[in-house]
Amino acid sequence: MSAGAIRVGLDVGGTKIDAVAVDERDEIIGRLRRESGWGEVEVVANIVAAVRDLAAESGFTLDEVVSVGVGIPGVVDADAGRVLHAVNLGVESLDLAGFAGALLGVPFRVENDVKAAALGAAVMRGAAGSMAYLNLGTGVAAGIVVDGRIWRGARGTAGEVGHLSVDPNGRRCGCGQIGCIETFCGGGALARAWGRPGALPVRDILDAAESGDAQALALRADLFHGAAAAVRVLVLSADVERVVIGGGLTALGDRLEAGIRAALRQDSDSSAFMRSLQLDDRVEILSSGSPAAAFGAALVGAADTSKETVPHG
Amino acid sequence: MSAGAIRVGLDVGGTKIDAVAVDERDEIIGRLRRESGWGEVEVVANIVAAVRDLAAESGFTLDEVVSVGVGIPGVVDADAGRVLHAVNLGVESLDLAGFAGALLGVPFRVENDVKAAALGAAVMRGAAGSMAYLNLGTGVAAGIVVDGRIWRGARGTAGEVGHLSVDPNGRRCGCGQIGCIETFCGGGALARAWGRPGALPVRDILDAAESGDAQALALRADLFHGAAAAVRVLVLSADVERVVIGGGLTALGDRLEAGIRAALRQDSDSSAFMRSLQLDDRVEILSSGSPAAAFGAALVGAADTSKETVPHG
Repeated sequence: MSAGAIRVGLDVGGTKIDAVAVDERDEIIGRLRRESGWGEVEVVANIVAAVRDLAAESGFTLDEVVSVGVGIPGVVDADAGRVLHAVNLGVESLDLAGFAGALLGVPFRVENDVKAAALGAAVMRGAAGSMAYLNLGTGVAAGIVVDGRIWRGARGTAGEVGHLSVDPNGRRCGCGQIGCIETFCGGGALARAWGRPGALPVRDILDAAESGDAQALALRADLFHGAAAAVRVLVLSADVERVVIGGGLTALGDRLEAGIRAALRQDSDSSAFMRSLQLDDRVEILSSGSPAAAFGAALVGAADTSKETVPHG
Repeated sequence: MSAGAIRVGLDVGGTKIDAVAVDERDEIIGRLRRESGWGEVEVVANIVAAVRDLAAESGFTLDEVVSVGVGIPGVVDADAGRVLHAVNLGVESLDLAGFAGALLGVPFRVENDVKAAALGAAVMRGAAGSMAYLNLGTGVAAGIVVDGRIWRGARGTAGEVGHLSVDPNGRRCGCGQIGCIETFCGGGALARAWGRPGALPVRDILDAAESGDAQALALRADLFHGAAAAVRVLVLSADVERVVIGGGLTALGDRLEAGIRAALRQDSDSSAFMRSLQLDDRVEILSSGSPAAAFGAALVGAADTSKETVPHG
């Protein structure tokens, strides 16, 4: 490989950074995880350290890095490289591309984490056409990718399906509305509704449901029907060919996948129209260790902004 | 104007055909309405007669017509020019482009009526960027136009927001599901729920609500909140810049517009996030006599299928 051919991608989550190095053939040649930290100074320091450590561990130098892309929660001004309101990281308003780029001497680009993951999942799947990436984590949001391009929309709310209400008698959402999809299938909302201690509350809910706990059975049904509702919104608005589910809840593995598929079938029972959409065949779930988000960030880092195409080696 | 410069567009509804002739500068130089008829033979005959009569009334000959576009309800195979399941017209499976084109000697193209109207509204507004056209008629569906192109999606369900459930305890929809957006703001569903005789049941509902009728007040609230829900779905999935409302219910005029805006504001009261979207400023309502649907059909008729761009004179 020639010098200057490596793209680095970082998925910066509320607790961990997942970093990958990608070569000219779109292959991942190195990967590491480290803490994200808290507050603007610490987050920048940990991002810079992640790139340095990844280079050292994978055997390349910073001179060989053509770009770094960062996927990060919050409102991202991709053109300015600025992150706003990343509340889980203690970031209020941060010129991330400016600080990190200056410290490393490498161009940085910043993107909303779900949009970056959507692009990564789309390219990893080799999918032409349209795809939505539905992130089931603490919150719920989707990214839409069409023909290898992130769908941006007019004002930055494309894919924000978590805050559509599907039940006027449902629970109050953190956003202030009632019965949002996120109140059904967001990890944070489920943990609050469950209200019992435990490091992995959604896993506890599934375990307790299998033991017949009535509250857990109800919340498990909410999880699956909420995710099914999000899939329906994406297909009956943007009409994406496939919905790929990622995010922290994919750690639930087969139980999540089987539950969502069953909910899609059950919710379609009464409707020939809905059955004709074959939604249960159009969803798939990423493995919980998938590098899609960090890989997508690497693609974003190297993207030509003016065209927003996906570079391929 | 040179010979062969006129595009004809027909919006074929359940009862009426609205036909327009459009010149090279995208100006409407003639317009007429006639009955749609019932069944495949009659629908073709009325479409052909509408084009002939429009030419005679507007003072051009069929030789000057370069294309005819037809917007028609039902499932449309635009490439094949075929219409399927247009139940309100008694059409089961019809090679409309083939029959009508052979009878007139002019190339026909066929498009779903809501998609054609969406394109027409977008071009009439001169809007770059993204727009959704939300059709509130007997049923409820939307078309999305981005940078002058109809958003098709993967399998023909783009914009089918009418069949998203927003209330698990709502009314049964014609599609088989419970609480679909269409059960709240579709004219057919409202008329069934109202259950009283009258030629214009939704107008009767608004009138009775103004007189304090309890059932009418509830149905009026359903209408406005259902339409608001459809607007939210379009903005929080595809993130269109504007939502333009058309369809038969626009005959309700200012009462519809004021009611939908008020519902959007009221539903956002509890949520700073929703208020930040300024949805009530992003909706607009076509006048009930708008030729957008027929005009869009004329554009579809002249479109280059391979690129799906909008022709401009």
